Amino acid sequence: MNKKSCSIVLVETSHPGNIGAAARAMKNMGLSRLVLVRPCEYQTYDCYARASGAEDIVDAAVVFDDLATAVEQETLVIGTSARLRSLAWPQLNPRECAASISDHTDRAGNASVVFGRERSGLTNEELSLCSTLLHIPTAEDFSSLNVAAAVQVVSYELMMAGATVSQNQSSEELPAPQQDMERFYEHFFSVLTRLGYHDPENPRHLPLRIRRLFNRAQPDRTELQVLRGFFAAIDKKIS
Amino acid sequence: MNKKSCSIVLVETSHPGNIGAAARAMKNMGLSRLVLVRPCEYQTYDCYARASGAEDIVDAAVVFDDLATAVEQETLVIGTSARLRSLAWPQLNPRECAASISDHTDRAGNASVVFGRERSGLTNEELSLCSTLLHIPTAEDFSSLNVAAAVQVVSYELMMAGATVSQNQSSEELPAPQQDMERFYEHFFSVLTRLGYHDPENPRHLPLRIRRLFNRAQPDRTELQVLRGFFAAIDKKIS
Repeated sequence: MNKKSCSIVLVETSHPGNIGAAARAMKNMGLSRLVLVRPCEYQTYDCYARASGAEDIVDAAVVFDDLATAVEQETLVIGTSARLRSLAWPQLNPRECAASISDHTDRAGNASVVFGRERSGLTNEELSLCSTLLHIPTAEDFSSLNVAAAVQVVSYELMMAGATVSQNQSSEELPAPQQDMERFYEHFFSVLTRLGYHDPENPRHLPLRIRRLFNRAQPDRTELQVLRGFFAAIDKKIS
Repeated sequence: MNKKSCSIVLVETSHPGNIGAAARAMKNMGLSRLVLVRPCEYQTYDCYARASGAEDIVDAAVVFDDLATAVEQETLVIGTSARLRSLAWPQLNPRECAASISDHTDRAGNASVVFGRERSGLTNEELSLCSTLLHIPTAEDFSSLNVAAAVQVVSYELMMAGATVSQNQSSEELPAPQQDMERFYEHFFSVLTRLGYHDPENPRHLPLRIRRLFNRAQPDRTELQVLRGFFAAIDKKIS
């Protein structure tokens, strides 16, 4: 586990106190990289009161305008979500996630765990940027966790995972960074559209299905090159 | 695990917000028995704001004047503490504690997990009432956890220990059978050949790379149909 390569990303957090409490939870568990996407005005009394010793994490937070940009350099992006109903997407619990992050950062990758808005979580578009979904198990009748509490649980599991040495080391290439995946999907969907197989105005579940499949596979750069070469060959034939 | 037989005991908590947040953490994880020893005036706006749906736990809390009375009916009392230096006392981590509580309540025992004051934790006298000590692992240079965050971690471990059904349950389809995968690869390679992107006489590593990628993804039948529909659309265009 290389904790320096693991970020906590909070999207549109609306209570400064939650940002402070998340920073404290991180620092307690040895994490330091906090990323904020479109946060509220957060450097308030409430935030620093809840940070209570983790002011340095708050002040070093990096702020972005959108999640896509925030995670574009990351090789593993994990999104937290409530239980999904409509489309089955592989969901890990915090312990499984921590094991995956530990292995990934041991292989020199960068990982982000993304937490959504207090009321509404992450949008489908934001979730589609994530290769893995994380679900924190809860009581069925009271499932909405406070965002800082969710950060606490995940940070705790990262602490526990870091206490053991990873056995699952593999010599495979790292997955391609998120921005390469986005270019790959763009190219894929444009080919599908030109073939008449995909209608962007009426996508049904097609883009989501394709994202789910390839996010699960976590292609490396070479594999993406092979697939994009294939798309380019189609482009050439149908132009 | 019988969660009804497990109490969370907070000793001399001085911030009402922490009591509310602890109640929320408990309810999220299916716990309901909150015990307060000499609390502050806690039924405040701050407490209920942080409880955010767990007001019932706050209002049902039982209040005692001292810890000895609060735990006198309990058959397992676990005290949370910072790492002890002076006296070697068996200390469990939250996971080990949860396993112990799960086993204990299954055997019809009652268990309490006791959390101390925000600043100073539990006194030695209070710790001596506990049969087991619980230490939550933290970063060495920033070890003071917020009390509600500590309750969250322990409640989460109790949830994980009590989950009889696998967390990773999903309605996902099974991976497609191997013969479907073979037909898929055949179709894929024939399209690649017709596009001039693949030469079966001189394959280099292309088929192997593609097999490795898609075997890793383990597509289900629906996903294979989507991809084969895509190949069929290419076939139609280039025929």
